Amino acid sequence: MDLNEKIDMIGRLYLGLEQIEDCKEFSALIPEVRTNFVYASKESTTPGDVLAVDGRISVVDGFPKAIGRIKFGASGYMAHLLLEIRKKDSEIRSIIDFANNPKIAEFLKAYCKGNGWDFSVVDRRFEPENMKDAEGEAISWMVEEAIQATGGKMPRVFYETGALGKEPVSILTGKDPLEVAEQICKLARSYHESGQRTR
Amino acid sequence: MDLNEKIDMIGRLYLGLEQIEDCKEFSALIPEVRTNFVYASKESTTPGDVLAVDGRISVVDGFPKAIGRIKFGASGYMAHLLLEIRKKDSEIRSIIDFANNPKIAEFLKAYCKGNGWDFSVVDRRFEPENMKDAEGEAISWMVEEAIQATGGKMPRVFYETGALGKEPVSILTGKDPLEVAEQICKLARSYHESGQRTR
Amino acid sequence: MDLNEKIDMIGRLYLGLEQIEDCKEFSALIPEVRTNFVYASKESTTPGDVLAVDGRISVVDGFPKAIGRIKFGASGYMAHLLLEIRKKDSEIRSIIDFANNPKIAEFLKAYCKGNGWDFSVVDRRFEPENMKDAEGEAISWMVEEAIQATGGKMPRVFYETGALGKEPVSILTGKDPLEVAEQICKLARSYHESGQRTR
Amino acid sequence: MDLNEKIDMIGRLYLGLEQIEDCKEFSALIPEVRTNFVYASKESTTPGDVLAVDGRISVVDGFPKAIGRIKFGASGYMAHLLLEIRKKDSEIRSIIDFANNPKIAEFLKAYCKGNGWDFSVVDRRFEPENMKDAEGEAISWMVEEAIQATGGKMPRVFYETGALGKEPVSILTGKDPLEVAEQICKLARSYHESGQRTR
Repeated sequence: MDLNEKIDMIGRLYLGLEQIEDCKEFSALIPEVRTNFVYASKESTTPGDVLAVDGRISVVDGFPKAIGRIKFGASGYMAHLLLEIRKKDSEIRSIIDFANNPKIAEFLKAYCKGNGWDFSVVDRRFEPENMKDAEGEAISWMVEEAIQATGGKMPRVFYETGALGKEPVSILTGKDPLEVAEQICKLARSYHESGQRTR
Repeated sequence: MDLNEKIDMIGRLYLGLEQIEDCKEFSALIPEVRTNFVYASKESTTPGDVLAVDGRISVVDGFPKAIGRIKFGASGYMAHLLLEIRKKDSEIRSIIDFANNPKIAEFLKAYCKGNGWDFSVVDRRFEPENMKDAEGEAISWMVEEAIQATGGKMPRVFYETGALGKEPVSILTGKDPLEVAEQICKLARSYHESGQRTR
Repeated sequence: MDLNEKIDMIGRLYLGLEQIEDCKEFSALIPEVRTNFVYASKESTTPGDVLAVDGRISVVDGFPKAIGRIKFGASGYMAHLLLEIRKKDSEIRSIIDFANNPKIAEFLKAYCKGNGWDFSVVDRRFEPENMKDAEGEAISWMVEEAIQATGGKMPRVFYETGALGKEPVSILTGKDPLEVAEQICKLARSYHESGQRTR
Repeated sequence: MDLNEKIDMIGRLYLGLEQIEDCKEFSALIPEVRTNFVYASKESTTPGDVLAVDGRISVVDGFPKAIGRIKFGASGYMAHLLLEIRKKDSEIRSIIDFANNPKIAEFLKAYCKGNGWDFSVVDRRFEPENMKDAEGEAISWMVEEAIQATGGKMPRVFYETGALGKEPVSILTGKDPLEVAEQICKLARSYHESGQRTR
């Protein structure tokens, strides 16, 4: 990619991260595996074309915190997932992962409905046996399932049920990190408020 | 605990962390959920008596990196696990978790044998159904199983097979963070070398 | 400024900082007051329009390290100096400060000559007495002096001799942070080599 | 030094730093050269026996922040100053530096009087000419002057007036980092309140 695209990508991911680091409510949605927030170049084909947070995003003093620098190639799984999603919908250039459990799942269903967003659940119990060791194929299967569940469109939010030895996570997709950050922070604040109401 | 014990604990965990941050080979053993490294006070009864790394230990620029400050109460699961282990063997005051997969499992078995260390595997498929939602009871069951497998002693190293939605991790136990850091770094370097040999 | 300019500015300063953090030789040029690296928006009029490193750039483990986030308004003195320089030459949008002492001064004189760069020394002994407490006026006087010394052009590099209670620093100017970072790293490596030669 | 002393020293400096990082009011007292906070071993003779903060303490997001790890040998000037002070009073094992200007100087005079603390001012205009380039001798001269001004005792607080090219700083001395941190935070809060009152 050329220098201008690189500059633009870093500026957008940096500003998106700033929003997330300032959103205390997102801490409650950071999964055990920690969050990554990734952004693919226009012509991305490999993880080396995907900008990510080295060391992921953890929780420090109650706030989300980007651990290392933002770098091309700093993510494996999330970069692969984004590349696979872009094969189906190249408008999507940024995704973030966050926690999932029955309470969050219920919230997400209602939240997506309220926002008119497509939403899918991928049930990994139906994952073909022979894919379990081939990460690439398993990701491709998951993306296909997420699309089938909405009747053909890549959903705005989807989550997978956990498999053996794998923590389930939710994914939010968007066109760039500014959009993804804005939406995930809104979602996190709404989830926080829903918890307050039910207490 | 009194101020002198607090000072001593922080000094030991700080020096242990320093060893780990300087051990590049340990990066390959940091699990998806990231590592925590915890140290219980002599009279510990709650996670608030257990010193841990806020934000856990991640990988940055290829090296292990402690994310936040070391703090009492900064760990949940690992603190509970250590408290449960101490009910069986109060000499153990520090533990660290690290990755597990079939390749690591095979290495660990040989490594522990070579060092004359007790070693157990806890098969979570046999975990009683009714415990799955009660974290405290599940931890207590796991510790019992780890001890039974060695014929009655808390093992130096044990790992659990993964459960649905849970990444399997390995645990190394020791009397203080200096010992644990020294042993986990030796183990990590030995694992790294074993990989070099088999290529 | 609009969002696109903000994104572009952050991307450029981030990439410039990355170059500097990777340039070990620059550590030897970080002054006691630490370095700041600033970048003004096109229409900048106040320090709030100048991007800078919160907490400045210090030395950690022998390498330059940006301490906090990059932020508009995070610098006082360096932002004011850049705004004053831009009144004379609006093409200059980024500056960095670095150490000065007799050895560095001698090197700089030769280095600038070798590169065909304008270079000035501002002798603060001649600073008008009545300005000493008015930071704004003192900066303005210094910029005028730096320009007079070159015969009318803003120099690429200038330094001030120390005043009472003030560490002397050198300044490198450029059109954007990528250019400034590239030039300061070249300069730092050349200074490092010159030290090796004279030993 | 033996391992137990090392552990104890790290624990105390870590806890002292924690107090300082939590004291927002101290930010206003961090000088341009940034602060260091140092702690000498009982038998210290060289800077390698003095624990300090690598990269010093800067201001990030309005709070004091220790930049790098705490390390033996991470300070030059402050370590030398502490070693020189200890030749006169070996009970002093920890010092911290902070800003000085006419307003702070006036506050310090009153604050020390109120606390019954010895306090000195070292006027660097009287520094012998031939010492200006010999850091070691200049430090030794400064310590002598600070003691003479109190009539023979090392003062709790002293400051130097600025010399050409040197920012003036104030020094607080104590027996260990816990005491120094507690006292400097009290002082910083008192200075903050005094500023509020005079507005």
